Amino acid sequence: MRVVVVGGTGAIGRSIVAELSKRHEVVVAARSGGAHRIDISSAASIQAFYREIQGFDALVCAAGDAYLGDFESMTEADVAVGVQSKLLGQVRLVLLGRPFLREGGSFTLTSGFLLRDPVPGTSNFAMVNGAIEGFVRAAAFELRRHARINAVSPGLAEESVGVYGANMPGRLPVPMSTIAAAYARSVEGFQTGQVLLAE
Amino acid sequence: MRVVVVGGTGAIGRSIVAELSKRHEVVVAARSGGAHRIDISSAASIQAFYREIQGFDALVCAAGDAYLGDFESMTEADVAVGVQSKLLGQVRLVLLGRPFLREGGSFTLTSGFLLRDPVPGTSNFAMVNGAIEGFVRAAAFELRRHARINAVSPGLAEESVGVYGANMPGRLPVPMSTIAAAYARSVEGFQTGQVLLAE
Repeated sequence: MRVVVVGGTGAIGRSIVAELSKRHEVVVAARSGGAHRIDISSAASIQAFYREIQGFDALVCAAGDAYLGDFESMTEADVAVGVQSKLLGQVRLVLLGRPFLREGGSFTLTSGFLLRDPVPGTSNFAMVNGAIEGFVRAAAFELRRHARINAVSPGLAEESVGVYGANMPGRLPVPMSTIAAAYARSVEGFQTGQVLLAE
Repeated sequence: MRVVVVGGTGAIGRSIVAELSKRHEVVVAARSGGAHRIDISSAASIQAFYREIQGFDALVCAAGDAYLGDFESMTEADVAVGVQSKLLGQVRLVLLGRPFLREGGSFTLTSGFLLRDPVPGTSNFAMVNGAIEGFVRAAAFELRRHARINAVSPGLAEESVGVYGANMPGRLPVPMSTIAAAYARSVEGFQTGQVLLAE
């Protein structure tokens, strides 16, 4: 299969690329680094990327920001960070990617444990993750040409403990191989409209 | 209590107003009709409304549109309908309403059954409902001054069967009184961060 990994240079993205490269041709796209530049907050950037790479069998998105910070002072501009990037960025990849996805292909988006177990300052993540899970559950029934769509909900990635772990007392880190395996199950499996937990 | 019902002139809104008016002072706001004009897709309109009415003990939102239509031809502009109205419209009401909400007050937003049981053409509703549920679950832990926040997830309202029922085979309509009661449980109860199902 030809598999696109958007955000393929991040901690989670690298583990997905490593796992899928064992069995597939992997196209790595990222905001910086990787073979291809892509900014998922821009429809024009996504369009240009798809025209460049053309057909693919699977797309995995492990990219997308959201706002992390104090709720009481959170403004609409803060909320827009997650809406434009992790929510609409991923949805754009699907909407604009449909014509380039080969028959029987799949999209795999990224949700996250902060939907089910938030910590202070993460309501924008919870909102966006809930939106992504709702979207894949409904869209799966309407994709044509036997296409599939799932979301993976990663827990606290082992490689991210240094950055975020201090704010998440009691949360056990998830090995990168466990997270990568969940994405591989979506890409190589037969399920659709599912949220695969790697928490 | 002084309770604001945004969208108080719609089918669900009227039933909420009827129920809460038995025991509380109810301020009805809507895009058209009602004592106060409000357009939740506009931060300026919401700000003006809050300055006009000043303090309140509870706000219920039963307003918000999303895109209903064919998935295959759905564009980012279609997705933006739900994001700007039912998602960000409700979130704006919370963010801008915080200074006007009295100690121990509550916000009650609206999700909906299409998150858990979508029908064709409703992926924008599923996305937005998922976002609202994720938002209230996380925000509840961070609201200050003993404020609460919940979402009600109404099923197919009895009064809406004529409009939407034909696209929802096998879905049993929910009496308006059952839906109104769920909102009353949120406003008058003690729970927070919950999704109250009226499906």
